[in-house]
Amino acid sequence: VKIHLYFTPNEFTEEDLKDRVAVVIDVLRTTTTMTLALRNGCKEIIPVADIESAVRLSSNLSREFTLLCGERYGRIIEGFDLGNSPAEYAEGVVRNKTLIFSTTNGTALLVKSKAAMMTALASFVNLDAVCGWLRGLGGDIAILCAGKQGRFALEDAVCGGMILQRLRQGGSKASYGNDGALAAGALVQKHARDLRRLLAQSQGGRDLVAIGLESDLDLCAQLNSTPVVPTYRQGVVTLGHAS
Amino acid sequence: VKIHLYFTPNEFTEEDLKDRVAVVIDVLRTTTTMTLALRNGCKEIIPVADIESAVRLSSNLSREFTLLCGERYGRIIEGFDLGNSPAEYAEGVVRNKTLIFSTTNGTALLVKSKAAMMTALASFVNLDAVCGWLRGLGGDIAILCAGKQGRFALEDAVCGGMILQRLRQGGSKASYGNDGALAAGALVQKHARDLRRLLAQSQGGRDLVAIGLESDLDLCAQLNSTPVVPTYRQGVVTLGHAS
Repeated sequence: VKIHLYFTPNEFTEEDLKDRVAVVIDVLRTTTTMTLALRNGCKEIIPVADIESAVRLSSNLSREFTLLCGERYGRIIEGFDLGNSPAEYAEGVVRNKTLIFSTTNGTALLVKSKAAMMTALASFVNLDAVCGWLRGLGGDIAILCAGKQGRFALEDAVCGGMILQRLRQGGSKASYGNDGALAAGALVQKHARDLRRLLAQSQGGRDLVAIGLESDLDLCAQLNSTPVVPTYRQGVVTLGHAS
Repeated sequence: VKIHLYFTPNEFTEEDLKDRVAVVIDVLRTTTTMTLALRNGCKEIIPVADIESAVRLSSNLSREFTLLCGERYGRIIEGFDLGNSPAEYAEGVVRNKTLIFSTTNGTALLVKSKAAMMTALASFVNLDAVCGWLRGLGGDIAILCAGKQGRFALEDAVCGGMILQRLRQGGSKASYGNDGALAAGALVQKHARDLRRLLAQSQGGRDLVAIGLESDLDLCAQLNSTPVVPTYRQGVVTLGHAS
């Protein structure tokens, strides 16, 4: 098993995903929020890259069973039902709903990941669950960090590094596929001890604090609080039962 | 003083360089080779992004005083005088010459860096000299890693991290400007102890070994062997006497 890790979406092409299982990471907050929403009973999530597509798609669906979700600059999009705070996605709100979702970094990356054999969504809240799922599958892996507007984001890199490290432990022969994979271990060693602090230090976390969303950091830092594995297939994110 | 560090050229815009001093790093091999060439007496280096521009430019200059230099896929470009191995740039070859230079990653980054107030070229061979120069200047700094075809390259990241770390030592109040700067320290801690080994591990180094250029790694790993500071201004790299 070879593991590639890409710190930003511009570092890989669709060709790099061929015959690999992709793991998409956007800790602050897309993959965290989607994972919680699915655990809380939402039926499915349709990630779309831009706001216009989200609105168009929702106009074709019954509003009774659909929620329009997402953010730009961290804040809920005007006219949308929900923003991107995990706390908004309570069971009473999302149960049996289809969520149409558009965020600044995460959803475009999900759409780009469709060139992979399969895609799982990972964040701190479901880290070990994703590792277990990957171990069961076997095969080469591409860990895709969303970053922040095309730039390196420390929290995604550390999360990716933790997945890589766990997969290399316990006798598996997983090897480093690229320099990103080679580098990520050092980031874990230095920055994974206190995830809440990591989020507070990172640019993404500081931006959330600046717009009054500090409590999101608490939820996003809760390691293994939500042990489910969302997968993205044929344009839809659901709780995967991959095989 | 704020220090930003970008692991790949796609992570910053020209706007990000405004009012900052840029440090361009392409350890394997552009900034190493250019530094050695200038130390060995070459008059100036004109970096150009593509081969066509290099050939066109050279046709306007006296061939007696000009050398066409560069690589694609690590190898010398057909019809060019020199490749990108530092060992090729001996004093007898380059003294008083103008070098027109085009490489896969480094030269395009140099050209892009012109939005900065000033640009220095850094690599392991002139690391402390560059740090001394930066300390003398003061002001905010953008460390720009060339990477490899738009991807993260470990050796450039470690070199950038070492510069950042040295600038933060010795009482200076340099602070982290972005997540890349925040992350680079961990890479230094883990990977800077044996630079020759680091180069052998990285994808860039392994690619050079694969085409028979392993001896380049020895030269590129020689920390502080060439204590000069090339600067890029108005389209030309020379031994800078910036002020």
